Amino acid sequence: MVEVICVGTEILMGNIVNTNAAYIGRRCTEIGVGCHYQTVVGDNPKRVEEVVHIAKKRANIILLTGGLGPTQDDLTKQTVAQAFGRKLVMNEAVREDLISFFAKRNVECTENNFRQALIPESATILDNPNGTAPGIYMVEDKHHVFMLPGPPGEMKPMLEASVLPILQEISGAVIYSEMIKLHGIGESAAETRILDLLEAQSNPTIAPYAKLGEVHFRISAKAKTKEEAEYLVAPVSKVLEERFGSKVYSKEEESSLASVVVDLCKERNYRIATAESCTAGMLISSITEIPGVSDIVGEAFITYSNEAKQKELKVSKESLEAYGAVSKEVAREMVEGLYEKTKAEVCLAITGIAGPTGGSIEKPVGLVYMACKVLDRIDVKEYHFSGNRSKIRESSVIYALGLMRAGILEL
Amino acid sequence: MVEVICVGTEILMGNIVNTNAAYIGRRCTEIGVGCHYQTVVGDNPKRVEEVVHIAKKRANIILLTGGLGPTQDDLTKQTVAQAFGRKLVMNEAVREDLISFFAKRNVECTENNFRQALIPESATILDNPNGTAPGIYMVEDKHHVFMLPGPPGEMKPMLEASVLPILQEISGAVIYSEMIKLHGIGESAAETRILDLLEAQSNPTIAPYAKLGEVHFRISAKAKTKEEAEYLVAPVSKVLEERFGSKVYSKEEESSLASVVVDLCKERNYRIATAESCTAGMLISSITEIPGVSDIVGEAFITYSNEAKQKELKVSKESLEAYGAVSKEVAREMVEGLYEKTKAEVCLAITGIAGPTGGSIEKPVGLVYMACKVLDRIDVKEYHFSGNRSKIRESSVIYALGLMRAGILEL
Repeated sequence: MVEVICVGTEILMGNIVNTNAAYIGRRCTEIGVGCHYQTVVGDNPKRVEEVVHIAKKRANIILLTGGLGPTQDDLTKQTVAQAFGRKLVMNEAVREDLISFFAKRNVECTENNFRQALIPESATILDNPNGTAPGIYMVEDKHHVFMLPGPPGEMKPMLEASVLPILQEISGAVIYSEMIKLHGIGESAAETRILDLLEAQSNPTIAPYAKLGEVHFRISAKAKTKEEAEYLVAPVSKVLEERFGSKVYSKEEESSLASVVVDLCKERNYRIATAESCTAGMLISSITEIPGVSDIVGEAFITYSNEAKQKELKVSKESLEAYGAVSKEVAREMVEGLYEKTKAEVCLAITGIAGPTGGSIEKPVGLVYMACKVLDRIDVKEYHFSGNRSKIRESSVIYALGLMRAGILEL
Repeated sequence: MVEVICVGTEILMGNIVNTNAAYIGRRCTEIGVGCHYQTVVGDNPKRVEEVVHIAKKRANIILLTGGLGPTQDDLTKQTVAQAFGRKLVMNEAVREDLISFFAKRNVECTENNFRQALIPESATILDNPNGTAPGIYMVEDKHHVFMLPGPPGEMKPMLEASVLPILQEISGAVIYSEMIKLHGIGESAAETRILDLLEAQSNPTIAPYAKLGEVHFRISAKAKTKEEAEYLVAPVSKVLEERFGSKVYSKEEESSLASVVVDLCKERNYRIATAESCTAGMLISSITEIPGVSDIVGEAFITYSNEAKQKELKVSKESLEAYGAVSKEVAREMVEGLYEKTKAEVCLAITGIAGPTGGSIEKPVGLVYMACKVLDRIDVKEYHFSGNRSKIRESSVIYALGLMRAGILEL
């Protein structure tokens, strides 16, 4: 049982959001170690000591972040050492590292900095490749105490490399997990389709995560060896793939709908072009967020006004007058005009009402038309998105990417 | 002294980041009420009761969020009532509200839903205009206990409308604050310029917040009346405005650089057009995120490839070959071509290297050129941004907006 204690007045004051606690909670859960409490306390020795004493009573693994730096404010080590009746001693190896770190950078190493080499007696040093404050691991009776630096860029790699392997050893088990990422199905519909599996689950477990326009399932198994855990996950992963079929857009941890669309286009030597009205650049900027897209993206158009739609995309005045700018006819003409201009193999046009104003009874806020042309085939779709302006625009982008994927794969 | 207790297993598991605690911490700090602890606990009655008992010992104001819904999981009210020795009683007014809420939506109101009308005896109801679960306020000896719903869209309005006024009354003082938002100066340079004020501060206080490309200062004073507090803030606010001059882009709580640029253009009847290479739509989508821009935005171009720059913006082949696509010459030609196409009063072109690849010793990753044309005047600037691809693109957008503002105001 883990308790996470985050030390930092800036978290209490809301200057920063506690993403560290969320990250630690997620990763502990994923390796099968339950996290029961998170506590945030300011840079105050009395209060830090008090929360450590409370944690000792209710958790066997205490994971602290923050307060390991070189200034007077940084009091985690002293306070925790005191709570467990230990002294701080100068660790010569850490001291040497600090001296060479500062020498390399031609910066003076002040006495303050050596505070970072003070370590509770008989504690283990956790390597910090991304900063000067080392992490600390102490075993005390039945308690395992970890102290990690506060900056996420230092904390996360240390958690992954040094802490999680120890936690896994403590728990005496290996957790192996696979992801299944879906688009084009809602969370409750997705859960209903695998209700039998969700209700029967014990090992592996199936955890759903809902994102805007997406549902992810993480399948995790616990076993004595990685091979055994993989063996438990495989059949469940296969069943999920079968049940969701083409709605599974990826099984990769780091992928997104945008990266999947980019990969599909790269494989096929397809170029992408977009013409956006209500999203006005959000779609193409989500695609170009993926590195290395210059082979497949040449140009794109934001045609916000009717004039721009006519001038750049040759949308007819007649269609604009007869059906309105937000209509399936105009979406189709936009994509046709976009293709004429760019000759891109994958063309996508969006026109919609993002609000808050501009809606009517016939055409409410949230109504969005998209036309997707992949090679010779054009698909025009009507969507009704809910939420505020931002959410309607974000939903439009996700569904546009889904439409491009479907068009390329001819789903 | 406040303790915030957030109830929800999904926070412990890291499925959601605890933005509620950050928001409450920031707002309490802003009205001068200190927040000393944040605790997160799962949907487990024993553990919730235990953390409430701990909070009773160390805080006089306990602010809980989450666990007020209609399901069996939602146990905050029962558990807190029990911790304070109170019974839950059916509140007829809330019950009536629930019935009419569901009737309006033609949805059946099940027995489960009436759980939301169970209120600890002699507690005060806090109105929830954004959901069905009312908030609760209990006064007990020296404790003030608030229970708020978990969804931020319900929690935040309730905190603002119902909780903060009570906290202000408890603290016996009024806090009044003003914001000063700066662009074009770094955090430490900004702090150095007002170091005398920062060191001397007591009432009002000056709190800096650094954002990408921006620094915000909040000046807050505590007094017995709002007038008195305003009177304390006014001279400090004036000094900051004088010291930072044109770097102050706004004093409005809700404004952003994008909204300020939009407002300036609306006032002057200027239209905006953009031509983006490395940001590829991020700039124009940040501008169109502001509602009601259809009067000032007609069209925009993403010219990612050299061909697109030539074809759409008439950038010369000679310049592309002689200076490269990322050069001040090409940025200037892009903005000139953009103007020829759109005749917009405010034209902005961006070309740069967002990375991770594509950099060289002469032109490293992070090098970005921007050309801004406002009426007849063209300004071309060179920037060196640091960080990964996302951060370079985001910085480019912020500085592009700053350049547009400067051009419009002729700074």
